[in-house]
Amino acid sequence: MSKKIVLGIIGAGRIGKLHSENVINNFRDVEVKAIADIYADKIENWAHDLGIKNVYKDYKKILEDKEINTVLICSSTNTHSKITIEAAEAGKDIFCEKPIDYDLDRIALALEAVKKAGVKYQVGFNRRFDHNFKKVHDLVADGSVGTPQIIKVTSRDPEPPSPEYAKVSGGMFLDMTIHDFDMVRYLSQSEVTEVYANAAVLVDPAIGEAGDVDTALITLKFKNGAIGVIDNCRKAAYGYDQRVEVLGTKGGVSVSNDTPCSAVLSTADGVFSDKPKYFFLERYKDSFIDELKCFFDAIKENKETPVIGLDGLKPVIVGLAAKRSYQEGRPIKIEEI
Amino acid sequence: MSKKIVLGIIGAGRIGKLHSENVINNFRDVEVKAIADIYADKIENWAHDLGIKNVYKDYKKILEDKEINTVLICSSTNTHSKITIEAAEAGKDIFCEKPIDYDLDRIALALEAVKKAGVKYQVGFNRRFDHNFKKVHDLVADGSVGTPQIIKVTSRDPEPPSPEYAKVSGGMFLDMTIHDFDMVRYLSQSEVTEVYANAAVLVDPAIGEAGDVDTALITLKFKNGAIGVIDNCRKAAYGYDQRVEVLGTKGGVSVSNDTPCSAVLSTADGVFSDKPKYFFLERYKDSFIDELKCFFDAIKENKETPVIGLDGLKPVIVGLAAKRSYQEGRPIKIEEI
Amino acid sequence: MSKKIVLGIIGAGRIGKLHSENVINNFRDVEVKAIADIYADKIENWAHDLGIKNVYKDYKKILEDKEINTVLICSSTNTHSKITIEAAEAGKDIFCEKPIDYDLDRIALALEAVKKAGVKYQVGFNRRFDHNFKKVHDLVADGSVGTPQIIKVTSRDPEPPSPEYAKVSGGMFLDMTIHDFDMVRYLSQSEVTEVYANAAVLVDPAIGEAGDVDTALITLKFKNGAIGVIDNCRKAAYGYDQRVEVLGTKGGVSVSNDTPCSAVLSTADGVFSDKPKYFFLERYKDSFIDELKCFFDAIKENKETPVIGLDGLKPVIVGLAAKRSYQEGRPIKIEEI
Amino acid sequence: MSKKIVLGIIGAGRIGKLHSENVINNFRDVEVKAIADIYADKIENWAHDLGIKNVYKDYKKILEDKEINTVLICSSTNTHSKITIEAAEAGKDIFCEKPIDYDLDRIALALEAVKKAGVKYQVGFNRRFDHNFKKVHDLVADGSVGTPQIIKVTSRDPEPPSPEYAKVSGGMFLDMTIHDFDMVRYLSQSEVTEVYANAAVLVDPAIGEAGDVDTALITLKFKNGAIGVIDNCRKAAYGYDQRVEVLGTKGGVSVSNDTPCSAVLSTADGVFSDKPKYFFLERYKDSFIDELKCFFDAIKENKETPVIGLDGLKPVIVGLAAKRSYQEGRPIKIEEI
Repeated sequence: MSKKIVLGIIGAGRIGKLHSENVINNFRDVEVKAIADIYADKIENWAHDLGIKNVYKDYKKILEDKEINTVLICSSTNTHSKITIEAAEAGKDIFCEKPIDYDLDRIALALEAVKKAGVKYQVGFNRRFDHNFKKVHDLVADGSVGTPQIIKVTSRDPEPPSPEYAKVSGGMFLDMTIHDFDMVRYLSQSEVTEVYANAAVLVDPAIGEAGDVDTALITLKFKNGAIGVIDNCRKAAYGYDQRVEVLGTKGGVSVSNDTPCSAVLSTADGVFSDKPKYFFLERYKDSFIDELKCFFDAIKENKETPVIGLDGLKPVIVGLAAKRSYQEGRPIKIEEI
Repeated sequence: MSKKIVLGIIGAGRIGKLHSENVINNFRDVEVKAIADIYADKIENWAHDLGIKNVYKDYKKILEDKEINTVLICSSTNTHSKITIEAAEAGKDIFCEKPIDYDLDRIALALEAVKKAGVKYQVGFNRRFDHNFKKVHDLVADGSVGTPQIIKVTSRDPEPPSPEYAKVSGGMFLDMTIHDFDMVRYLSQSEVTEVYANAAVLVDPAIGEAGDVDTALITLKFKNGAIGVIDNCRKAAYGYDQRVEVLGTKGGVSVSNDTPCSAVLSTADGVFSDKPKYFFLERYKDSFIDELKCFFDAIKENKETPVIGLDGLKPVIVGLAAKRSYQEGRPIKIEEI
Repeated sequence: MSKKIVLGIIGAGRIGKLHSENVINNFRDVEVKAIADIYADKIENWAHDLGIKNVYKDYKKILEDKEINTVLICSSTNTHSKITIEAAEAGKDIFCEKPIDYDLDRIALALEAVKKAGVKYQVGFNRRFDHNFKKVHDLVADGSVGTPQIIKVTSRDPEPPSPEYAKVSGGMFLDMTIHDFDMVRYLSQSEVTEVYANAAVLVDPAIGEAGDVDTALITLKFKNGAIGVIDNCRKAAYGYDQRVEVLGTKGGVSVSNDTPCSAVLSTADGVFSDKPKYFFLERYKDSFIDELKCFFDAIKENKETPVIGLDGLKPVIVGLAAKRSYQEGRPIKIEEI
Repeated sequence: MSKKIVLGIIGAGRIGKLHSENVINNFRDVEVKAIADIYADKIENWAHDLGIKNVYKDYKKILEDKEINTVLICSSTNTHSKITIEAAEAGKDIFCEKPIDYDLDRIALALEAVKKAGVKYQVGFNRRFDHNFKKVHDLVADGSVGTPQIIKVTSRDPEPPSPEYAKVSGGMFLDMTIHDFDMVRYLSQSEVTEVYANAAVLVDPAIGEAGDVDTALITLKFKNGAIGVIDNCRKAAYGYDQRVEVLGTKGGVSVSNDTPCSAVLSTADGVFSDKPKYFFLERYKDSFIDELKCFFDAIKENKETPVIGLDGLKPVIVGLAAKRSYQEGRPIKIEEI
């Protein structure tokens, strides 16, 4: 009989709440025993309605609870590596939101702790579990497109974050493109070896004043010879644009955006259809459930998680390379980082 | 403060189980107190895992429970009208699966009982809550397409039921087209006045031997002057085909099928994309939740349900007219039924 | 060496001019020796610019010219059968615009004359040569969709003709649906056996006052067991809507409208794309050339034309049946006509 | 009254023949008086059938013919600038195939001669006249997408040329991407200021051995602040892939490939549709006619041609920059060339 998962959730911001609700509504055999948040008082009603009995201000109470064998780390990014280490030392299996950290040394320490403790570890790159991107990955993996030659990712947000956000987030390459750096690894099944970031401030000058960019074309070289490009913008007027495309020796595969409905209205004025689903909560709704399913399955069946520590580390390295490429105006080899 | 809904579910076949899971996973403020099924022993584990404490063989225990104020009738069709009457007399608000009955007199008695008891009553025409069809309806209702002229419904199943099924189901017009007869009323916002059924046995001769048809083009006239056509087939090789289209004086609106993903693979052999979602459980997944949401909201806010008793009655009348039209080879006016 | 085609064109209205230009621009080995039109004076400049030397008021001059071995009959419908007979007697190969006539007896006489003379004869059902419809036909013919079950044709015009037109044209079923009656024969590869026309006046009351309809759903039965529906409207606000769909035992095939371009504009207001190509001259541009190519090839290679006399006759019979069906409000068997 | 155009065509290879036929079939008021080709004897029959009376081995006979006032230069690229100078000095209006030359000095001399002679001059960037790309251009130009931010061009061929071709053509950036360098100028309405070419040999090692690349992602910076990427491959298994996309502050616009037909076949095996039109002759058929129409109109109405000398020069400069970028592995500023 498989292990009974008793869960503690650390951090009850937007993503922590989302995971909590997803676990409770979709994984009847997983018990959510406790949730911790520095604003514990603000989430008590919500947690109570959801049936979570223990709400702590201090996440350490979760780590100290021997019955809790698994944690979801959904706290602010700067705490990820520290809590990962503590949770690993407490012997908990760990699901950690991305990015693990912006500091490569701290990531290394966290992954070392995980390795030493022998606990399960999964990073929250949920887009790998998206129905569209997963299919593209599968068609590359099963050879349908042949050897990958060109990988293209379009990733544009409907609205920019506040200019201040860039200061704490590490900037666009680390808070937004990080998902795309993971995606190109996932689709190409190879590692990035070189990055060139062609970027600009075209959405909001305040973003530039805060030291960040808001629009970028990032070209990549991969170990397997393929080349790639990521196209980012902090604001697309029509909404959240999330597409990928792979060209290989046998053919190409691409996906279009998901829309709220397929209705097409044709009038004398033209032909009208729906904009993409609004933002990541709508667009990637099911992927957040599917990544947890895979995580829980990995624990129950004692197998490797689908997004391991290395998968958390690599996109950060590429992000730092992209940042330097933009600053120095030249292609950066990954080994320079 | 709104009324607390305490629910009893009658019938735990495929649709009863689906509703049970949907309520428990999506409506935290609704209590599922009991479920009844004539094969109670076979569903006990399932119900237990779901957290439903009371599992009865006899649905009357649900009706007798004073705390239970709302029932979902998901039992076999021939019991719908009888249980509706009993539940109404017991003062329960009622959600009843479609069709209410195949017998117009029994439907009349059921609706009368509902009216007399003053309870809420909603019929399970879930497709009205589908994201695509709802949008078409809304674009007709808000005048975007002008006055409706032509209503078209394509509704094809991936696999036929067993030939025997037709004998108990009332035949294709009553078990399958019934949804489409509801859909044309919903989209046209008018009543059918005449039906002509051009039908044939083209899928499986055994269906014909059982006295039914498997392929049909049913043309309709509506009170508001519009005309319509429903296109049915018991088996489309590529799967579940569910589309509608409305032409009005200002324009047209149509929807395409939902697919599991949007990936398009292009190779030397051609361009390939996904088939429609497999069948009604996948295709209409969210609509089953949304219809319950509307039902519960109607109770809580004491307003009319979105699919009333009349909406349950009318499609049955049109279905009987279609059946006679096919048998007699001529258009049938609704008042003939 | 193949026969040198020397052409006379009878009738220089819109379609006569179109054919003239198409022949001259695309068939360098075909000589257009003369054109005749009752308004000869009005077309002289046009014909001169095009390099047609002989412009006659009386088409008989063309029939009398021994060098001219081939004629295109593009005059008004009521003259088609008469000129066909005269041209056949004069030994000319004949391309005749559709419909041959509205009168079955006159059609019979014309086809008899053609047969007796042993000349080539092709009717101008150009839509058979459309890239989209031809592909649907081919996928039915090569067995890709299996045995046809349901044939659907959508055929809607951007603007209605003047209400007076219906009086001379024979009405919508004979001037507009005639193309669709040919199309269903072409796609189904079978003959219509029964027709039911569900029609109405929803576009312009003046059309009704002139004794015609402007909107229709015409259901059909075919000899091979398939059923079909044609959906007509004299005016679709968004333009010329020309689609077909065939469901067979192995699958379905459908085509969408052609548009002037594939540009999709996405803004905060929605996603916008092009309306269909404006009308038949734009939509069927290439098909008019391709039908002539096939006609000329049939002459040069002495083989059967792709649209023979019978193909001109049958749609008229179905059209008359549809007309009677609408008048009598019942399905009409083809043998009743 | 407008000037009568008397045309001489220089060079009767694939593109020269195409232009000859297009002029004769579409521009009745333009006289094609002579054609010259070094293999004059091989084209005599073809020219005769087309009605061109004078076929010369030496193009100078065309330049010497005083009646000929306009020339199409369709000879091999290395002769373009020389013949341009001679034709300009002979006072002919000139349509010259792209590229003008691979040598910037020779281009400068040619454009100087044109300027001095005051003759009309148009470069054969036919893709600007494509229905899809023209619409994208227009939606950028009329402000529908706002200020351009990201320009993307996908341009992939169905088959690579022979590896030897690269040696004479100047390589992929100059023989293939040259069209795309023109396209980004056309769409962005700005000038390229910097180029970075991420390129590889992924199609055929023989291409690499011949000193060229076959796959590339070329990122660009524009004077107006926008950034862009061109995605090239010498061989896409599914055929000729020609798409563009522009993101601006108000929205995005994109185009998909043209296909031979719109038929979609759905079977148990999946959903199948057509590959793109085979290659540039099919895909850009109408654009070749439209560019000539604009050229002839510019002459007749004495206005500027839509693709002037500068438009011929600039893409060559960008192409040389891309070549150097690839060789040196760094972004190249245009002023470095």
